Amino acid sequence: MRVGVIGGGQLARMMIPAAIELGVELRVLAEAEGMSASLAADRIGDYTDTETVLGFARDVDVITFDHEHVPQDVLRALVDAGVPVRPGPDALRFAQDKLLMRERLSELGLPVPDWARVETPEGLDDFIAAHGGAAVVKTPRGGYDGKGVRVVRSAAEVAEWFATVAEDGRGGALLAEELVDFRRELAQLVARRPSGEIAAWPVVETVQVGGVCSEVIAPAPHSPGRLADVAADVAITIAEGLGVTGVLAVELFETTDDRILVNELAMRPHNSGHWTMDGSTTSQFEQHLRAVLDLPLGGTGCHEDWSVMVNVLGGPAQGSLTDRYPEALAGHPTVKLHNYGKAPRPGRKVGHVTAIGEDLDEVVYEARAAAAVFQD
Amino acid sequence: MRVGVIGGGQLARMMIPAAIELGVELRVLAEAEGMSASLAADRIGDYTDTETVLGFARDVDVITFDHEHVPQDVLRALVDAGVPVRPGPDALRFAQDKLLMRERLSELGLPVPDWARVETPEGLDDFIAAHGGAAVVKTPRGGYDGKGVRVVRSAAEVAEWFATVAEDGRGGALLAEELVDFRRELAQLVARRPSGEIAAWPVVETVQVGGVCSEVIAPAPHSPGRLADVAADVAITIAEGLGVTGVLAVELFETTDDRILVNELAMRPHNSGHWTMDGSTTSQFEQHLRAVLDLPLGGTGCHEDWSVMVNVLGGPAQGSLTDRYPEALAGHPTVKLHNYGKAPRPGRKVGHVTAIGEDLDEVVYEARAAAAVFQD
Repeated sequence: MRVGVIGGGQLARMMIPAAIELGVELRVLAEAEGMSASLAADRIGDYTDTETVLGFARDVDVITFDHEHVPQDVLRALVDAGVPVRPGPDALRFAQDKLLMRERLSELGLPVPDWARVETPEGLDDFIAAHGGAAVVKTPRGGYDGKGVRVVRSAAEVAEWFATVAEDGRGGALLAEELVDFRRELAQLVARRPSGEIAAWPVVETVQVGGVCSEVIAPAPHSPGRLADVAADVAITIAEGLGVTGVLAVELFETTDDRILVNELAMRPHNSGHWTMDGSTTSQFEQHLRAVLDLPLGGTGCHEDWSVMVNVLGGPAQGSLTDRYPEALAGHPTVKLHNYGKAPRPGRKVGHVTAIGEDLDEVVYEARAAAAVFQD
Repeated sequence: MRVGVIGGGQLARMMIPAAIELGVELRVLAEAEGMSASLAADRIGDYTDTETVLGFARDVDVITFDHEHVPQDVLRALVDAGVPVRPGPDALRFAQDKLLMRERLSELGLPVPDWARVETPEGLDDFIAAHGGAAVVKTPRGGYDGKGVRVVRSAAEVAEWFATVAEDGRGGALLAEELVDFRRELAQLVARRPSGEIAAWPVVETVQVGGVCSEVIAPAPHSPGRLADVAADVAITIAEGLGVTGVLAVELFETTDDRILVNELAMRPHNSGHWTMDGSTTSQFEQHLRAVLDLPLGGTGCHEDWSVMVNVLGGPAQGSLTDRYPEALAGHPTVKLHNYGKAPRPGRKVGHVTAIGEDLDEVVYEARAAAAVFQD
């Protein structure tokens, strides 16, 4: 069994251990030398170039992804060549274009923030006026980790975005959304096989700092019962409605008036699921491989009551993560460390730690303390 | 951090996931193309050739092993060249030569079966006569998985072994041991850093069929308390007394008269520790890497009350392990499967499965049933 992964970042890297255990040969098309997943890099190339991608795909059983940025024409060329692509282009376009995603989720009757397609500054100012004087504006494409997202009180604050989208030949529109008054952010991960089987992990709480995921608590405190059921239902409806195969991450808002609204989607393993590597029977990386290979899915139970994952961002100002190993490993023998093999740079995700246990306060403390060793 | 592993079998393969998570670059000197650990194979070469091994070792921080068969002169050449070798040659010779091992353990006052160095058939017949008419005879070197071990009632049954050892230039002796009346076999795994820190997992019960490990139950039933303490003390005494670094596996007999006797040693990750990958906070492969890099050791607690590992031997008579995945994975979603990427052959260890849980009967049933799917 051979799986081809487009993109050589940490998500591809973390698929390697799962592939080794399952006896799956993983081949990565990396963007450059020395990337996180370089151990499995079969070749280096441009994922926007159809010939490169077709050549890479020739000897694999299925193509999947480290990111959602492969252009639709390249994806279609793979499908036309008879290569199984999971998730497929029809699903991926909803992860690639936030306007399409909002339209489709609304059609499916799913709970989303109020939103509008705005093509002019005037249209945006009208939306702002109708939504309490503020809006979240998003570029439909290319944003991640808080990039391409801005909270504004006037269209003038995103004037240059209107100029950019007017020139990109894709309709010239921005996405405007109500500024949701939320209590906390949640994420629901599921995996779906082409044959239809779906498995869901428990809904988790995610803590973002500056638009970047900082911490994940699994399961989300006070979630068992209605909240967990609603979150799972929403994600399953999306996975089925959009025809997603592989892992789907649904980022959710829990509003102050107790509604669950869909924020963003990712059709691949996701930062909010890293805890599964140490906290669940089946990691999201193993499950993703099973799903894209159309193999039966694994159990999604938890080893302990609580799992807490904390990202290591940036890393030490001087030196590398490994310089801090003696202190981090000696002080936190039960915390699991994951090093992405990336050069530390401010704000960059270079690793994460996970603690599991029965006492939430203790688990949170352990995970944060271990992560803190790596940050100045 | 770069670790060089001599030998490309499944033990080296299973170090790869641990290395990826720890951000350790693993480089394998494999015996041939297409071996289990080929993903990390840096080069193919003969581990008995000093120049090959010295060349391989040039760019790594430490050398460790997938097996114990690297000759002492090659090991000494590495040490002379300033390469950290863990475990080092002074420790490894006790894993390479069972006569040396018996002598050293006896010196350390450790409990071992009655044994003798026998150089002639007459000497062996005397030993047999003094031990109830039977003995276990072992070639001091080169045996594993039941090879080089024979239960005999007369020296005539190993006449050709005397002829062989007489010619190998190593003293011409065989090891004779009393045939121990044991209730069951146990194994105690520990890991030791050069700086002295030691960590022990719980003692486990191992079930052998035809001299090959078939099943491991962790912890060994009815072991907590005195038995666990004795087993851990024995292994720690050996690790310190022999100067072992990395993982040490001590195979033990629990006799019908309630003694614990040391059977065999292995100075590397061991089949009896595979359960740790799914059942313990720190897998034996991660711990081995930490230990040989002289990093602080990880926690050795268990996720659940029981972990049971069952080897997959031989595999399907027709086809490959993956042909059975739909049945195995659908029927056993909580069992963890480890495929060594080896061509199935009768009796060959090609993978293992591990189940964990609170009810021992259920866990044993699950693990055996999952393994059985792969065997005709």
